[in-house]
Amino acid sequence: MRAALLSLMNKVRRKKLTPEAAMKQLRWMPFEDMGFARLDTHREMRTAMPEVVFCEGKTVDQAEAILRRLVARHGRALGTRASEELCHRFTSGPDRIIIDYEKLSRTLVAGRSEKKRRGLVAVLCAGTGDIPVAEEAARTAEFAGAGVKRSYDVGVAGLHRLLSNRPLISRADALVVAAGMEGALPSVVGGLARCPVIAVPTSVGYGASFRGLAALLAMLNSCAPGVAVVNIDNGFGAGYFAAMVARKGGRK
Amino acid sequence: MRAALLSLMNKVRRKKLTPEAAMKQLRWMPFEDMGFARLDTHREMRTAMPEVVFCEGKTVDQAEAILRRLVARHGRALGTRASEELCHRFTSGPDRIIIDYEKLSRTLVAGRSEKKRRGLVAVLCAGTGDIPVAEEAARTAEFAGAGVKRSYDVGVAGLHRLLSNRPLISRADALVVAAGMEGALPSVVGGLARCPVIAVPTSVGYGASFRGLAALLAMLNSCAPGVAVVNIDNGFGAGYFAAMVARKGGRK
Amino acid sequence: MRAALLSLMNKVRRKKLTPEAAMKQLRWMPFEDMGFARLDTHREMRTAMPEVVFCEGKTVDQAEAILRRLVARHGRALGTRASEELCHRFTSGPDRIIIDYEKLSRTLVAGRSEKKRRGLVAVLCAGTGDIPVAEEAARTAEFAGAGVKRSYDVGVAGLHRLLSNRPLISRADALVVAAGMEGALPSVVGGLARCPVIAVPTSVGYGASFRGLAALLAMLNSCAPGVAVVNIDNGFGAGYFAAMVARKGGRK
Amino acid sequence: MRAALLSLMNKVRRKKLTPEAAMKQLRWMPFEDMGFARLDTHREMRTAMPEVVFCEGKTVDQAEAILRRLVARHGRALGTRASEELCHRFTSGPDRIIIDYEKLSRTLVAGRSEKKRRGLVAVLCAGTGDIPVAEEAARTAEFAGAGVKRSYDVGVAGLHRLLSNRPLISRADALVVAAGMEGALPSVVGGLARCPVIAVPTSVGYGASFRGLAALLAMLNSCAPGVAVVNIDNGFGAGYFAAMVARKGGRK
Amino acid sequence: MRAALLSLMNKVRRKKLTPEAAMKQLRWMPFEDMGFARLDTHREMRTAMPEVVFCEGKTVDQAEAILRRLVARHGRALGTRASEELCHRFTSGPDRIIIDYEKLSRTLVAGRSEKKRRGLVAVLCAGTGDIPVAEEAARTAEFAGAGVKRSYDVGVAGLHRLLSNRPLISRADALVVAAGMEGALPSVVGGLARCPVIAVPTSVGYGASFRGLAALLAMLNSCAPGVAVVNIDNGFGAGYFAAMVARKGGRK
Amino acid sequence: MRAALLSLMNKVRRKKLTPEAAMKQLRWMPFEDMGFARLDTHREMRTAMPEVVFCEGKTVDQAEAILRRLVARHGRALGTRASEELCHRFTSGPDRIIIDYEKLSRTLVAGRSEKKRRGLVAVLCAGTGDIPVAEEAARTAEFAGAGVKRSYDVGVAGLHRLLSNRPLISRADALVVAAGMEGALPSVVGGLARCPVIAVPTSVGYGASFRGLAALLAMLNSCAPGVAVVNIDNGFGAGYFAAMVARKGGRK
Amino acid sequence: MRAALLSLMNKVRRKKLTPEAAMKQLRWMPFEDMGFARLDTHREMRTAMPEVVFCEGKTVDQAEAILRRLVARHGRALGTRASEELCHRFTSGPDRIIIDYEKLSRTLVAGRSEKKRRGLVAVLCAGTGDIPVAEEAARTAEFAGAGVKRSYDVGVAGLHRLLSNRPLISRADALVVAAGMEGALPSVVGGLARCPVIAVPTSVGYGASFRGLAALLAMLNSCAPGVAVVNIDNGFGAGYFAAMVARKGGRK
Amino acid sequence: MRAALLSLMNKVRRKKLTPEAAMKQLRWMPFEDMGFARLDTHREMRTAMPEVVFCEGKTVDQAEAILRRLVARHGRALGTRASEELCHRFTSGPDRIIIDYEKLSRTLVAGRSEKKRRGLVAVLCAGTGDIPVAEEAARTAEFAGAGVKRSYDVGVAGLHRLLSNRPLISRADALVVAAGMEGALPSVVGGLARCPVIAVPTSVGYGASFRGLAALLAMLNSCAPGVAVVNIDNGFGAGYFAAMVARKGGRK
Repeated sequence: MRAALLSLMNKVRRKKLTPEAAMKQLRWMPFEDMGFARLDTHREMRTAMPEVVFCEGKTVDQAEAILRRLVARHGRALGTRASEELCHRFTSGPDRIIIDYEKLSRTLVAGRSEKKRRGLVAVLCAGTGDIPVAEEAARTAEFAGAGVKRSYDVGVAGLHRLLSNRPLISRADALVVAAGMEGALPSVVGGLARCPVIAVPTSVGYGASFRGLAALLAMLNSCAPGVAVVNIDNGFGAGYFAAMVARKGGRK
Repeated sequence: MRAALLSLMNKVRRKKLTPEAAMKQLRWMPFEDMGFARLDTHREMRTAMPEVVFCEGKTVDQAEAILRRLVARHGRALGTRASEELCHRFTSGPDRIIIDYEKLSRTLVAGRSEKKRRGLVAVLCAGTGDIPVAEEAARTAEFAGAGVKRSYDVGVAGLHRLLSNRPLISRADALVVAAGMEGALPSVVGGLARCPVIAVPTSVGYGASFRGLAALLAMLNSCAPGVAVVNIDNGFGAGYFAAMVARKGGRK
Repeated sequence: MRAALLSLMNKVRRKKLTPEAAMKQLRWMPFEDMGFARLDTHREMRTAMPEVVFCEGKTVDQAEAILRRLVARHGRALGTRASEELCHRFTSGPDRIIIDYEKLSRTLVAGRSEKKRRGLVAVLCAGTGDIPVAEEAARTAEFAGAGVKRSYDVGVAGLHRLLSNRPLISRADALVVAAGMEGALPSVVGGLARCPVIAVPTSVGYGASFRGLAALLAMLNSCAPGVAVVNIDNGFGAGYFAAMVARKGGRK
Repeated sequence: MRAALLSLMNKVRRKKLTPEAAMKQLRWMPFEDMGFARLDTHREMRTAMPEVVFCEGKTVDQAEAILRRLVARHGRALGTRASEELCHRFTSGPDRIIIDYEKLSRTLVAGRSEKKRRGLVAVLCAGTGDIPVAEEAARTAEFAGAGVKRSYDVGVAGLHRLLSNRPLISRADALVVAAGMEGALPSVVGGLARCPVIAVPTSVGYGASFRGLAALLAMLNSCAPGVAVVNIDNGFGAGYFAAMVARKGGRK
Repeated sequence: MRAALLSLMNKVRRKKLTPEAAMKQLRWMPFEDMGFARLDTHREMRTAMPEVVFCEGKTVDQAEAILRRLVARHGRALGTRASEELCHRFTSGPDRIIIDYEKLSRTLVAGRSEKKRRGLVAVLCAGTGDIPVAEEAARTAEFAGAGVKRSYDVGVAGLHRLLSNRPLISRADALVVAAGMEGALPSVVGGLARCPVIAVPTSVGYGASFRGLAALLAMLNSCAPGVAVVNIDNGFGAGYFAAMVARKGGRK
Repeated sequence: MRAALLSLMNKVRRKKLTPEAAMKQLRWMPFEDMGFARLDTHREMRTAMPEVVFCEGKTVDQAEAILRRLVARHGRALGTRASEELCHRFTSGPDRIIIDYEKLSRTLVAGRSEKKRRGLVAVLCAGTGDIPVAEEAARTAEFAGAGVKRSYDVGVAGLHRLLSNRPLISRADALVVAAGMEGALPSVVGGLARCPVIAVPTSVGYGASFRGLAALLAMLNSCAPGVAVVNIDNGFGAGYFAAMVARKGGRK
Repeated sequence: MRAALLSLMNKVRRKKLTPEAAMKQLRWMPFEDMGFARLDTHREMRTAMPEVVFCEGKTVDQAEAILRRLVARHGRALGTRASEELCHRFTSGPDRIIIDYEKLSRTLVAGRSEKKRRGLVAVLCAGTGDIPVAEEAARTAEFAGAGVKRSYDVGVAGLHRLLSNRPLISRADALVVAAGMEGALPSVVGGLARCPVIAVPTSVGYGASFRGLAALLAMLNSCAPGVAVVNIDNGFGAGYFAAMVARKGGRK
Repeated sequence: MRAALLSLMNKVRRKKLTPEAAMKQLRWMPFEDMGFARLDTHREMRTAMPEVVFCEGKTVDQAEAILRRLVARHGRALGTRASEELCHRFTSGPDRIIIDYEKLSRTLVAGRSEKKRRGLVAVLCAGTGDIPVAEEAARTAEFAGAGVKRSYDVGVAGLHRLLSNRPLISRADALVVAAGMEGALPSVVGGLARCPVIAVPTSVGYGASFRGLAALLAMLNSCAPGVAVVNIDNGFGAGYFAAMVARKGGRK
């Protein structure tokens, strides 16, 4: 942004731009208005990560339009909570483009995939029911350019299942740990890990799990340091955060 | 109770008692009215455990009177959440009786102690701050006639501390596991134990622990079967329950 | 576990196993990786109870595969929250096996049933609406090898219905008490019982019952000692816990 | 307001209004402005009950002034949550008036007491700790002109203590039932009673009682019909309501 | 109950009954076991009101069977939350009986209606959406033998609509006031009424009404004395309670 | 009511009342009873705004009848949360009237539209998912006679999108700001605005958004002064309030 | 701000400023860094209201320093939640300045008072306990340049007290309505008012008022349109908002 | 750990250790039992960070003993929530050691300080009241070996204060953002940052902030990706996590 601002001011100085015109440019510059949405097309420049589309709560038309626009700009785009109907929009008709859709996590990668991977994100989850959230995290981290390894169904009630993952836990640059019910897994992993643990509570459970609240509170109160938490079922947020960490510190 | 009822009816049959008199006896029989409290003096007969006095919320006078009455009837009594002021009532003056007061857990055992112990209750806790609750459980279980072994500060963030307790966990007839914060310990212990685990959430923590709510919810959602939960900070309830279980199954 | 570890180390000592190979065995030994699930096949050895499958949140394919695997290993398996569709997977086709499916509680017992019963679990519930949860508890306790007696619709608003169950309450080695709405039944039963009471709040009710929260809080605050609580609608947990207790103390 | 009253009386004087018509108008019209408070001096006429002063949250000066004003108007007044300091304002100095202060319930009756009693309110409570609330209810009902009988410490964990109160339960015109912790008592009493039960949750308890919330929810979900609920610790509201009911239906 | 008990004991005394046989009778006497339900057939004797059937959460078969049983015993029965399907069970086929079904409130009166009415219950509600709950209250109160007058859509945002009901408010022996959203109506009515007000929060509203919680809390905190509260949407409970009050005090 | 109106008019006719005095009386008096609803037909006179119909929770028949009645009286009416089915009632058949229905916001304006606009309400929202609520606010404000400008999808994660709206923010007489998830937008806008900000939390989000609770709490705690809040998803309330403010201060 | 930016850019154009220097100025221009606080000294320019100091949570030293700085810049300052200790800092010693401190509301006005008043804010409250919050609102509105009239203790349980305020309600340009407990007053006032109502829930109450939550929810669900809500006990926010509204529309 | 295990097994192989002795060592090796606490002395080896002592909830004696033990082992130790009394234990008497105590954040660094710093953690906070939490984060990150820059009182209501920090935000390897009240700051910062943002809700606020719950929920629902959250007031956790991230990616 700084460069853009300086270039703008230099234009003003060189009288290639009136102050009034500069004001206007400043106002409209870094996004694209689609009517129902304003694409933050400069986010990649600003935050080093492209905008990702949360498809739930958007119509299929809206989601399709935004994704196509991002592919046009950046060559690739990620849609989370994407329906199969949305998926079909890209795989048929004259405007078809290559996508990679994963059903369980409802993630859709459109356009070219990221080839270079940097750093290692390990994604763990406590039970079979947590896999959709874990997988959303894993695929997001991959999209964001990190290497990813998965280890699922390693909940704390059968500790040996978890302990067999120690080598992976030691090697990772960042850990994503998804768990529902009592959400104890991140605390245990946090005590074993040398890297930051991003805990994702899932809504798996019933009764007093209150749709993930129990797991969320548990993770926020983790007695192991080095644990931070994202929203319930927010696999995307965890994967994105983990990739940020892993790419920084990771081996190319 | 069945025996008492049958005996009463037999008296009626043998005309040693009019039906009207029997009605009256039935009504007033199994407790003693102290005005501000009704001692359930037959609880020991009915439930095999004497009434225990929860001293908080009672005046020192009331608590003292009730405890003395129970000692007079049963030879011994347990007071929980007992203040040091209450303690002094028994240790000085002409009516002094022998008591055993433990400061941290605020438990007071008045009168003779139970000599015979049956079964083994293991009491574990996650952190130093959970010791008062754990100790209340331990002393209650001892009062109720069970053998007790303690292992404190074995929280899940340092798994090896817990795993060194495996022999104890295997040997116990019942386990009491106290933990605050994220309350993960009972789940991990539940996966290792062969006996019932009574989980006690404690109010240790801050912020989103909401005075023990986080730990409570975690324990209710434990993924390990064989775990049941008592109220936050209810060491007494856990110890009492555990003793009931251990005495049943335990070696004498 | 101890025996297994010692035997492993003896092999190392006798140089039948390199330390590296031992490390590997230790890591992978006690579970079986099915890709989407890791069967804790050694749980029976470790905790004296086989793993039970919570079918909700798993696909029918996953649930079927896991259950068949457990039957293959242990001769029998219990599925809770099992759909009728899952049930049909076992009763038709070339791989049919004998199952016992109970509709109300959605419990499915596959393979041979446990013949020997030890101890007595009494299962009570407050209203007609609580029967599915109570029945899940009853069938789980039977699967886990305890004798079971049921008494349903004995809520506290008609005390005489409950009081007629006193003989059963006195005889039981463990009591499961399920109730929705105000959840008062475990407190009343707790005052009458000589054995541990496992309280199960149910989501029966409306408005300020908040899907079982009212009953859950009531049970956690029970004024009767000897009461411990499991999650809302967790009949399985209650039955499993009760069987653990009853088998310990019960008559064979 | 003075102007309005004068105008009304002038109309009556000029025979433009019958006294009866004036009475009716008076019922809805007036209050007395004390600056920091507006005395609803006609409430007694309108609702047949005098205004009662909730002293908590008022300064001692304010509470004293309002109570004296009510005594001056109606001959008597009730203050709830009254401090001992407030009490001393009436018992010393030149303006002393006769008061009846009860410490436990912090209720203060100033001025003449109601002699005629009509109907019978029975006040029950579950434990010793609930007595202050129960007593506030009892004294309010007496102040409001109902006969009152008390029976305390009759909680459900010792059913026989409660069942011995059946004659009282049968005879009452209205029942006030106060309980903290799991708040089960009103449900049990509701199943035995022929008259309305006013349930008062108390803040007695700890942990998951959440200062009376558990008892409140339990009472709102009572499976016994004929039970209505007032705010946590609102002994005054329960006693007032019960007196309204009892005086209607009661024998003089 | 007392009479029944005395007669039983007299039989024992006269040796027409062994103590053992008496024990058995005592146990089974005051209810009827239908397998899935225990009819509290003596409730009418004990509480002066027949048992009412809450049909939600019961199968149509169960609800039908219980209602027919109650009609057979008492000549009439009330079903609340009754589906139209249940309704058809009574209006067709060889066993048809006369019923009166009201769609909005889903109340079903089977058998003869109560002719004698005593006392006046006024039922008010704040908005059109509250009518189903208000009507359930009104019809329950009628079934329970009270006279009923309705006044609907008189919420506080248009005070004049409410104030036009003053005569009705003054005349009633008991008031049922149903309101959703902010639940302010009972407080305003409580300030105008001379009789007890039974407040019913409804789940009408959205967002921060939290399905009736806002209205419930408002009513529990009513600044007007003489207001008691029942569960959210519990029109039945309010009507039943109001009829109890009105019949006591009401004119025949 | 008819009688009251007639009597008033007769007084005017007989010159016992000036028309001005009659107007004043009319302001507080009347409504029209439709049986299931009482139209507050004089609200427009009293509060300067016509009654608006919240259609959710009313049958289509009820909503149609009320809307037609209001159109007949005032020439126009607004229905919120109006279904398409309701819409069709007005656009077909012999009684068709002109309506303007907007699908996303489910708002229906029947009858003539308000031509004169006064003041400027700016409506902002954070994301695409918030548009239905924002649009309800915008259309309500227009119906209530204010000028409206919209700017959507200007959430705080891309500040430049918001900052480009500064001229609009500066010019507005009142601002409506709708946001779900973390609800941060009103705080940021509040720091930039010179006019009152009406914040509308929306239920957009998942997990720990708890259907808009997170946004609601955030807005109530806004560190920027000049922000007030309406209920979750209450676009109508925000638009109505904003129009009240804007029309007061706005340029005609 | 626009003017400031344009002027800055013109300096750049005229080469009186390098782009780099402009960048720096832009960054630091509109606030003053005091180390522990950054005074937003341009807020008055930007939002037409000076920054107000919330003194709670600041040390007395910090609060004093900030207030003195604001007085130095703007001639006057308002401190809310100001302790008496803070007050003494200004009334003694060599640096004494004139202040106006009001004890109940803990508001402190330092420096010159605003002479010109514009518009009328009416401040109402339900009970005596709500006066501190109401008074904070009233004094803030005065500080912000609006005329203010107060009417206290006009809660809904004595409607006639409220109705006597109708002339004031009609005349106001904005209404602040403070209430605790059930928070019903804003709904009733909203139905009578022609101007916006700013509702302030107070923490007055006990038990299920949950420190103002009941009142807050009630106000958010107000059935009267034209009501918006601020945080519990936030008299400052309500007064500030009301003054913004009143000054816009009000008569000078 | 792997190395330690291998070495142990090699000793067994070489018969320098019996299997039984190895078992024992395995059990007790990696911690030190102090009776009331078990020091996890190998944590530094395992997780690359030393154990930090949370002093709240421990007696001064316990905290002192643990800190001295850690200093003895590692040369340095950090105590959080340390009282001044604890501080005096180290600064007087014969056993005095050098400490660095910061009052506002209550952090105590005992022993040598870490000289080498790696990576840059930027710590921002919204208001003056958030400084104690922010400072705890800053000092923890320094203790953990990261470079730290602070920028306080940059809340969103005065955006320009925040925007002036863009260079710092761009340069940081990890950001800690502390905010109370509506907790909006992390969302805005998250939209500007290229590195992970660790959000710390603080308990600053009142009323509907519910001691930090509002800020916590807001942060969990942040619309900006790259934001993860720790417990309310958990400055330690945020600083520790941030240092882990920054040291990985940071310049030495």
